[in-house]
Amino acid sequence: MSYNVDTSSIFSFALETGISGDKVSSKRYLSNLKGMVADEAALEEMMKKEDSLVYEFYEMGVPEHPGDLAFGSTICYPGKVGDEYFMTKGHFHTILDTAEVYLCLKGRGLMLMENPEGDVTHEILTPGKMVYVPKRYAHRSVNIGNEPFVQFFVFRADAGHDYGTIETKGYRKLVVERDGDFAIIDNPKWGSK
Amino acid sequence: MSYNVDTSSIFSFALETGISGDKVSSKRYLSNLKGMVADEAALEEMMKKEDSLVYEFYEMGVPEHPGDLAFGSTICYPGKVGDEYFMTKGHFHTILDTAEVYLCLKGRGLMLMENPEGDVTHEILTPGKMVYVPKRYAHRSVNIGNEPFVQFFVFRADAGHDYGTIETKGYRKLVVERDGDFAIIDNPKWGSK
Repeated sequence: MSYNVDTSSIFSFALETGISGDKVSSKRYLSNLKGMVADEAALEEMMKKEDSLVYEFYEMGVPEHPGDLAFGSTICYPGKVGDEYFMTKGHFHTILDTAEVYLCLKGRGLMLMENPEGDVTHEILTPGKMVYVPKRYAHRSVNIGNEPFVQFFVFRADAGHDYGTIETKGYRKLVVERDGDFAIIDNPKWGSK
Repeated sequence: MSYNVDTSSIFSFALETGISGDKVSSKRYLSNLKGMVADEAALEEMMKKEDSLVYEFYEMGVPEHPGDLAFGSTICYPGKVGDEYFMTKGHFHTILDTAEVYLCLKGRGLMLMENPEGDVTHEILTPGKMVYVPKRYAHRSVNIGNEPFVQFFVFRADAGHDYGTIETKGYRKLVVERDGDFAIIDNPKWGSK
């Protein structure tokens, strides 16, 4: 469903939780992480108990016009698969040369970014911190804290989502727990760079 | 000053106040409202006492590229000039066909909007409410509450600001206090529509 963005509209987000009453969220469960995590055996074990919710997001359907803006909230829940923190799939933009803005409202997270040339970067987010995801960078939200990691996001409405190499090989880096804090390590599917 | 938006960057906003430590805000005082308010005599009287701060905003300098996003926070303080609530000057976008997103973080405000054809609309904002300002609409933030009205905003970096008729005649409507709450009335400079 698309909204009529030629008239003004109000949308509501609970700032503490990211939850919106304006539409139903898109939900991703452990079973949706298959092929995306480093430790598939640990994932299978967890799923035997419960196919838990890993993240959800509200993306208001805005027509793909270059003068419009897509926006919404994303909530990544705390947890790990093996030693790898819960994370979103993430995406490139189909129009690669478009940026995205994420404002953290709650929790402690990490934005993991990489461009097609293999340049990798990340930023740490806490409430009130905003990350500017540059043009050409795939970006994934990772919850490295103990509570939901809530962000508000905005990007150009026609940017589109593209999964590219993320779909097959994942990101070049993994975000894992080491001695109680996060560490960024090479993804063995890519090899070290 | 422009940031390098080809690498990722972190910006900080205090969610409760909108204040950022990343740069100096642009500040607008009572004296900057000259020619913008309905009751210029009341404005002169207030300025004799103190040239108070009406609003301030943090706009991070992003190069004007259509794939980039300009963003920041805006804080409109509570107050009135005569019976007209404190407000921002507001603007059209130079590239008229570009939208803007405002997320309210604190306070109670109103977004007053009008397009060049004279269609007028408004939305009420409280924390967690987000207004989608459509393409082609000038927009002004008005504080109709008793505490600072804080918003986070995002628009296409090349959209630009244009003042058009706002500069000379103001908006078609005024937001004033009537019996303890706000009312939207015709701006006598425009006549009724």
